[in-house]
Amino acid sequence: MNKYKEKINLVLQNFFDAKIIQTAKISKFNCDIVKILKEYTLRGGKRLRSLLMIYAYQALGGNKQSEIIKASAAMELVQTSLLIHDDIMDQDNLRRGGESVHYKYSKYFDEVNEHFGVSIAIIAGNIAASYVFDVIGNTTFSDSKKIKAMQIIIDYLAQVNFGQAEDILLSKKENFTEAGIEKVHYFKSMTYTAMMPILSGASLADYDKEKINALKIYAQNVGLAFQIHDDIIGIFGDTKKTGKPNGSDLSQNKKTFLILKTLEYASKTEQEFIKKLLGQKSITVYELEKARKIIIKTKSLEYSRKKAQKLIGKAINAIQKSTINQKSQIDLIKIANFIIDREK
Amino acid sequence: MNKYKEKINLVLQNFFDAKIIQTAKISKFNCDIVKILKEYTLRGGKRLRSLLMIYAYQALGGNKQSEIIKASAAMELVQTSLLIHDDIMDQDNLRRGGESVHYKYSKYFDEVNEHFGVSIAIIAGNIAASYVFDVIGNTTFSDSKKIKAMQIIIDYLAQVNFGQAEDILLSKKENFTEAGIEKVHYFKSMTYTAMMPILSGASLADYDKEKINALKIYAQNVGLAFQIHDDIIGIFGDTKKTGKPNGSDLSQNKKTFLILKTLEYASKTEQEFIKKLLGQKSITVYELEKARKIIIKTKSLEYSRKKAQKLIGKAINAIQKSTINQKSQIDLIKIANFIIDREK
Repeated sequence: MNKYKEKINLVLQNFFDAKIIQTAKISKFNCDIVKILKEYTLRGGKRLRSLLMIYAYQALGGNKQSEIIKASAAMELVQTSLLIHDDIMDQDNLRRGGESVHYKYSKYFDEVNEHFGVSIAIIAGNIAASYVFDVIGNTTFSDSKKIKAMQIIIDYLAQVNFGQAEDILLSKKENFTEAGIEKVHYFKSMTYTAMMPILSGASLADYDKEKINALKIYAQNVGLAFQIHDDIIGIFGDTKKTGKPNGSDLSQNKKTFLILKTLEYASKTEQEFIKKLLGQKSITVYELEKARKIIIKTKSLEYSRKKAQKLIGKAINAIQKSTINQKSQIDLIKIANFIIDREK
Repeated sequence: MNKYKEKINLVLQNFFDAKIIQTAKISKFNCDIVKILKEYTLRGGKRLRSLLMIYAYQALGGNKQSEIIKASAAMELVQTSLLIHDDIMDQDNLRRGGESVHYKYSKYFDEVNEHFGVSIAIIAGNIAASYVFDVIGNTTFSDSKKIKAMQIIIDYLAQVNFGQAEDILLSKKENFTEAGIEKVHYFKSMTYTAMMPILSGASLADYDKEKINALKIYAQNVGLAFQIHDDIIGIFGDTKKTGKPNGSDLSQNKKTFLILKTLEYASKTEQEFIKKLLGQKSITVYELEKARKIIIKTKSLEYSRKKAQKLIGKAINAIQKSTINQKSQIDLIKIANFIIDREK
């Protein structure tokens, strides 16, 4: 995994460096936007989606090694584009341990100008999105394969945006259900964390119905498990590792299985305490610690962990039962286990 | 032109209706976003960019009539996507005589929530952008032609966003130059008003270097003339026809040739009056009338008009000197004249 990570980062670095030279001809201001996109993209990130794209391509027997690594950088650009817009919507100042784009640009002038920050961040996210297809377009895969990959990416991009809308709406609601959370997980997370990279990667290799079906089951389960684990990290993770402020999932009133189950099994006073935190502007370390204890006590943490483990089990099972080559099976299983093991 | 307009609108209508059925399965909230995208796209619009795409395709000898009309709907989706994000940045509540998307959604709950409005509008713009490629992908042009068209569209989308960033930065500056305005016109307007539709349309037909070069010169000149005329309408147009609030170009401190030349030739008191208006929250009918008189008196209006006419002359000349077929020449010349004749 680390071997690929370095290569993906190198592709991203070269891509952005070429764009920086190009945009320097337009203006310093524009060039700086690209520099920020580069830094934001390379700042952190697990390259998880790129790896899934590469592994899916290899699972289908694809062997244009350097081309698929190039193409996989597109997944990081999708991520950058979505996260920049996400940061605006969540009003997050921090991302991957650095400043979010809208926050950075809100301080561009002597006087803080939030609207200016948001405007430039919308633009920066759009530019990153256009770079996604730039990357795919400039690989040496056949035109029909490129078109297929692009269509898959575009289709899931629309779905992620719909999921995001649903998520925002849900965060404004008092009541929520398991089905509501599942819908958001499905569209917002599973689609672009797993389906997009896996199916676009597969589409760049030769078609094989049986293997693609196995990868689809894998993607669905791994994608949902990813989000459940992400929600666990969101409350139990170490801020230093996640790069997000303490308890931000709580203050953003993010609807998770963790919270749903906690509210179901907690005592009345505990329930009231948790409800008070949801949407509260900032959460103290003490409050977060108390919330964590309640989540553990109600066995809600255990419930989420088991749910994620079960999904990963299903994902691994689908791969093991398939005719996918041994090496790819090992890679896909390793990354599936990593998804519910990671600390950030 | 009207014959095509109706056909383009029909394509858009059918496209959105299919998407509405599709998204209804996700949720009512998402489905409503698509309904709003449909209404916003069909609400007004001159279909200018679609027409340019169709004419450029025909100028290159393309004869898949119904396919190019289908593809040309992509230009309207580009427009929708950009305008929705533009409205956020300009804080415009009105567009094409109706509500802007962020304004509409800011009133979704009982209490006005501007941030919610902005968030949903960012998402709606992103969905429209993904629809652009959906439309191109679903035509029957060859894969290599589709890829070419997509790459052209993507490339110019990035450029428009850079132009938009430049425009926003310029609107925050007190001093500005002819070169600064030209840069914004070049990237923000010429690229997506003329270069994107014309070159993507041409790319879907058979390659012909001489004709494409003529179309490039045409596109550059027509694109710049479009923006100059747009700026004239922005101050002298009839609100009922433009669908924009009175004097919004002034209150947004939009940097135009019209204002540049006025400030150059106006008396000191007139200069101060105009400068006071730039960025002023709302402009009264009286103030607008007075500003118009100053712009006319300083011959700034005449200057802009002549500049636009000269550009259109160059565009027409390039077409007339080319080997492009007679019918296409007539169409392209007609639309070039329309661009500096239109009232909205």
